[in-house]
Amino acid sequence: MIAGIIGATGYTGAELVRLLYGHPKIEKMLLSSVNFEGQSIEEVYPNFLGKIPGKLLNAEEVIAASDFIFAALPHGTGESFAHACMERKIHYIDLSADFRFDDDEATFSAWYGKPYKHSELHKRSVYGLPELNRRRIRELAASAAVIIGNPGCYPTGASLGAFPALAKGLAAGTIIVDSASGITGGGREPSRSFHYPECADSIAPYKVGQHRHTPEIARNFAAMAGGNPVPALIFTPHLAPMNRGILSTIYIPLAPEWRVTPHTAGGIRLPSKEVEAKTVQIHDLYADFYKDEPFVRVLPAGLTASTNRVRQSNYCDISVHMEQGGGTLIIVTAIDNMVKGAAGQAVQNMNIIFGFDEKTGLEAIPALF
Amino acid sequence: MIAGIIGATGYTGAELVRLLYGHPKIEKMLLSSVNFEGQSIEEVYPNFLGKIPGKLLNAEEVIAASDFIFAALPHGTGESFAHACMERKIHYIDLSADFRFDDDEATFSAWYGKPYKHSELHKRSVYGLPELNRRRIRELAASAAVIIGNPGCYPTGASLGAFPALAKGLAAGTIIVDSASGITGGGREPSRSFHYPECADSIAPYKVGQHRHTPEIARNFAAMAGGNPVPALIFTPHLAPMNRGILSTIYIPLAPEWRVTPHTAGGIRLPSKEVEAKTVQIHDLYADFYKDEPFVRVLPAGLTASTNRVRQSNYCDISVHMEQGGGTLIIVTAIDNMVKGAAGQAVQNMNIIFGFDEKTGLEAIPALF
Amino acid sequence: MIAGIIGATGYTGAELVRLLYGHPKIEKMLLSSVNFEGQSIEEVYPNFLGKIPGKLLNAEEVIAASDFIFAALPHGTGESFAHACMERKIHYIDLSADFRFDDDEATFSAWYGKPYKHSELHKRSVYGLPELNRRRIRELAASAAVIIGNPGCYPTGASLGAFPALAKGLAAGTIIVDSASGITGGGREPSRSFHYPECADSIAPYKVGQHRHTPEIARNFAAMAGGNPVPALIFTPHLAPMNRGILSTIYIPLAPEWRVTPHTAGGIRLPSKEVEAKTVQIHDLYADFYKDEPFVRVLPAGLTASTNRVRQSNYCDISVHMEQGGGTLIIVTAIDNMVKGAAGQAVQNMNIIFGFDEKTGLEAIPALF
Amino acid sequence: MIAGIIGATGYTGAELVRLLYGHPKIEKMLLSSVNFEGQSIEEVYPNFLGKIPGKLLNAEEVIAASDFIFAALPHGTGESFAHACMERKIHYIDLSADFRFDDDEATFSAWYGKPYKHSELHKRSVYGLPELNRRRIRELAASAAVIIGNPGCYPTGASLGAFPALAKGLAAGTIIVDSASGITGGGREPSRSFHYPECADSIAPYKVGQHRHTPEIARNFAAMAGGNPVPALIFTPHLAPMNRGILSTIYIPLAPEWRVTPHTAGGIRLPSKEVEAKTVQIHDLYADFYKDEPFVRVLPAGLTASTNRVRQSNYCDISVHMEQGGGTLIIVTAIDNMVKGAAGQAVQNMNIIFGFDEKTGLEAIPALF
Repeated sequence: MIAGIIGATGYTGAELVRLLYGHPKIEKMLLSSVNFEGQSIEEVYPNFLGKIPGKLLNAEEVIAASDFIFAALPHGTGESFAHACMERKIHYIDLSADFRFDDDEATFSAWYGKPYKHSELHKRSVYGLPELNRRRIRELAASAAVIIGNPGCYPTGASLGAFPALAKGLAAGTIIVDSASGITGGGREPSRSFHYPECADSIAPYKVGQHRHTPEIARNFAAMAGGNPVPALIFTPHLAPMNRGILSTIYIPLAPEWRVTPHTAGGIRLPSKEVEAKTVQIHDLYADFYKDEPFVRVLPAGLTASTNRVRQSNYCDISVHMEQGGGTLIIVTAIDNMVKGAAGQAVQNMNIIFGFDEKTGLEAIPALF
Repeated sequence: MIAGIIGATGYTGAELVRLLYGHPKIEKMLLSSVNFEGQSIEEVYPNFLGKIPGKLLNAEEVIAASDFIFAALPHGTGESFAHACMERKIHYIDLSADFRFDDDEATFSAWYGKPYKHSELHKRSVYGLPELNRRRIRELAASAAVIIGNPGCYPTGASLGAFPALAKGLAAGTIIVDSASGITGGGREPSRSFHYPECADSIAPYKVGQHRHTPEIARNFAAMAGGNPVPALIFTPHLAPMNRGILSTIYIPLAPEWRVTPHTAGGIRLPSKEVEAKTVQIHDLYADFYKDEPFVRVLPAGLTASTNRVRQSNYCDISVHMEQGGGTLIIVTAIDNMVKGAAGQAVQNMNIIFGFDEKTGLEAIPALF
Repeated sequence: MIAGIIGATGYTGAELVRLLYGHPKIEKMLLSSVNFEGQSIEEVYPNFLGKIPGKLLNAEEVIAASDFIFAALPHGTGESFAHACMERKIHYIDLSADFRFDDDEATFSAWYGKPYKHSELHKRSVYGLPELNRRRIRELAASAAVIIGNPGCYPTGASLGAFPALAKGLAAGTIIVDSASGITGGGREPSRSFHYPECADSIAPYKVGQHRHTPEIARNFAAMAGGNPVPALIFTPHLAPMNRGILSTIYIPLAPEWRVTPHTAGGIRLPSKEVEAKTVQIHDLYADFYKDEPFVRVLPAGLTASTNRVRQSNYCDISVHMEQGGGTLIIVTAIDNMVKGAAGQAVQNMNIIFGFDEKTGLEAIPALF
Repeated sequence: MIAGIIGATGYTGAELVRLLYGHPKIEKMLLSSVNFEGQSIEEVYPNFLGKIPGKLLNAEEVIAASDFIFAALPHGTGESFAHACMERKIHYIDLSADFRFDDDEATFSAWYGKPYKHSELHKRSVYGLPELNRRRIRELAASAAVIIGNPGCYPTGASLGAFPALAKGLAAGTIIVDSASGITGGGREPSRSFHYPECADSIAPYKVGQHRHTPEIARNFAAMAGGNPVPALIFTPHLAPMNRGILSTIYIPLAPEWRVTPHTAGGIRLPSKEVEAKTVQIHDLYADFYKDEPFVRVLPAGLTASTNRVRQSNYCDISVHMEQGGGTLIIVTAIDNMVKGAAGQAVQNMNIIFGFDEKTGLEAIPALF
């Protein structure tokens, strides 16, 4: 099978090429790049030396000669390529935000500042978070060429962490997602924010109360909550001095029937056996919820999710905790932002579309360091 | 004036020696160390080469020959030294947790697992957060030898970030403090958690719902709230791959009269002018609250606090934000955990005690990198 | 085939388990650990969660039930296990220094402070640098159980960088190898040297003029030089603030017939066309020398080897340079210390021993970040 | 005294402002910036918040109103400002390369690609390495306005490491300087080379055999060697994943009378008592050579220079080693590239020019982390 990757020289595109290189169903890759057309990818990233023959093409050439397409392009540029793929009746997996909002153009345009150009494409696209939409992805792909809106990096970890609580009605009130990302999340283009001396040995939040992944997470929460009340969402991303990984600490106020009456001393809440017991109960609920998911690991009680435990892998690790007062569940999730948060999840979607074992090409053990 | 530092070879103690070296009122330092008695501090940290003459003594020798004492010791070991200082009628500034809870032995022993040995010492001690207790520190020190319980690193940034909201009655509900610390916070003793390959290029929380700084922060919140309702507290510390600094992102649900009615599209809350305007109003309230504080900088609107802007300094930077729905205030604070979070604040307390300008020895501009 | 790994919970052992997990010829692994016997490896490294079933055994159990053995043990502990394997007539690949010196006990004992206990084992062992000894490894393994002394991390990059110059008689005088290693090279055991705050954001050499890899490199130089004069060696390792990778900058004074007469201005040597031309000539010689090696990449002229281009891979990248005066060749090599410098090379040796394609299980593209 | 800093918003300029802020002889600073004229420096670096009043001016305004000038400008732009200062008869300390080569225009133009515009200025300028030219700086400044060419970062550490060997005639043959710098050395302008994901967790050399600091180091070697033979120089800079610091490992082949006959076993040189004894002798010679230098610390035997021991200070630490064969001296030097390698050394030169104690404003103990 020939995979086409348009936008192959950005960080996400290059990571995708690297993953697909080891995928047993991909016989060949065709790559496009606006900035480096005519060169080879190893000229851009010497890591690829001797591995990926062929020149970087333009997007039209890639679409014309591939069996399906991954697009790793800037937001707002994917619709015309998706359109071309639909014309050719080949699947199109978009790693930008362009197809993450289905036909909700109001939300997309409010946060991304652009209207839809091809509204009809968004009616047939599907948001590619397998843990939410696996069945729908499979069904759509079975009957026709499909457009996948591959999820954002933060929304992946945030959504997977909250889903069991939402589905089972544990949540009430406002959910706070406090996340920290490695700096590859900012992409390949140099800028002051990602200049080594400006971000090394330092941590800070950014776009507080304004990050574009907020509506995507909120929409996912609503989709999973079903008939349950949908909590409001507060989302704060941070930039941490590391290359890869997203850690999300998720605060989920519990519905009254799940709360523990806090122990206090001098007005200060104390840890207690009741809280411990309730934590175990919710941990088991989480473990059960994800027991058949190939890429979600609910960690054994006592462990805490950490980005270095999922490095270079497609896993989302989840650990279940509770604040000492027993009123708020604290879920920690860790993903590799470039894999489960981008390129790996795109490959997972590809596997689903084509009916391969979902783990194909994604089975490596997370790198230890 | 001769300053005695007992426990001078731990990270906090050594940082203190470094700060005091540049303090114009300190003529001499006497240092003690259990592990390195008889050696010089430059044998432990070559940074000090040629700077600090004299051998490391034992604690008794230091107390006997100094005009006042800093203690940078493990928790649970300070009471006897404090007792000795009171006998000698010299001030005692304790950088451990031993004197942070005044006479609330119940809370201290619930979280630190030890009873007080000398209860009477805790009746005359004062919690050394100048922005909360400056007047009381000054008054006590004017009349007798005083014991200062120098604040914990996390509680400093957390408390300063919430104080204006608490004092002015903005807060309602549960405050969440989500913090990330550099690895010097773990001290000088090697362990797996702080082994370079285990923590480099990775982020994770620890002691979720159980960290000992929780009751200290909660107590500070109550002290500042005064007659206002005291919000409950959830505190989660993280370990970030950097040497120094603590960033705290503090979520403060607003009391009804401070909330903005959220704008929504498709059930998803949107940023709005009203939220912007309310943020400016609260920003100004914060700026006014701290206008006379020498070490608290409320950043101009549009900036976000970041640990690299306070590096190697005694500042606490604060930035004021709001989630897009207008219901929750988001305050970000940044300190250097070793300075305002430990040694620098101890020097600030010393300056207060002795009636020096509070900024003496602490005026350096934060290191740029 | 069942692979036995004794010492599976050290960094090298665990990296080996990770690599073997993806190796198509390995059906099963049996693991031993002194410290964690009876637990599972996922309890030691949560990265392995759900991947490696079974408990950690003791070494004897592993040897008894495996088809061949990797030993990732501390120096000086391998001989008895090698002996046991020879008794069982199964191959033994040792990742410590114990079998790196063949029957040269004098050199081994001078640098490692221990005599050989089983001298006869060292007569039948072979130093497992495939680029030097591939044929011999293959021949020995064809006829009997073989013992492989897997090379040290520094010697791998240093030797591969100097081999073409030595084999072709370019070198004269003293070769200087100046190397920098990531901190995983120090292993899993916490110590002050590898404590995050002590080594982050800093670089320093260690064991200057005394590192144990010196005689191993010198021996390799002599082996490759053959009839050519054998240059003396100076080797200096540094610790750099990164997790993985070894960069070696190798200064090789050129024999008179290879030197360029330097251009000078005011006694200072200047870059020149002649030096450029000579560099191209030597570059081509290097490229030709390694043209059939699967894991050595001589970079195109103009590129410089960098550890982030071989990250998580078994490649040794080599770039060819010259000092501006044209008298000294400067070769830069980059490897991943845990892969080509340890576990990957061990797998490469395994592939050779069993007649598999040498690249089996080692074909991943180097991680981009 | 009013200090003028032109180019105050680059990294070097800003570091200088920070150092001068604590200098007791500086009453006021006037700052210029091409990019940020009219703004304040705290808008560029929030670190300065509340510390440095006043707007950024243009260079002419600063020169007109200051008592002397620091210029922290790109190479090739300083001559006209120096000229203006000489017209005004005020001292001019240039931190670029423009005045580092005295009247040797041939070397300057060969490496920097530009001729001198004002040759007469270079006849009256002096290279500002105090350990080489202190007396001349003082003498020139006593009689007229002086131009100081403040040394490059690499040349400072390289020269100080080799000076005693050169002055005492220990050196023969070619000296190799292998250096690693933190990334602030690349300045404030974002580029791919200094983009966080491209340089974090990785090390590599750059401009091998071509770096512009080569002729500056070579010139310093010649100046110090005096009547002794002048060794040739090879210099290789590396970029290390850290913010600040330069480590130089300097290989100095010993003149025959200083060499030790190597001990060997199997052709491999071994460590020996004779080498140890010779190392002590040379160590003492180094210590004696620098005994009156305020900012050079020859470390006690057994210690190795490390960048984290001079962090944020004006020290150059030097450790003395020998390769095990006793033929080559290995000197390791560590400086903070932004302080002794740039802004601190400029302040040191200012102190000399004005007859202040040379340590004024530069006495801080190196930061521990």
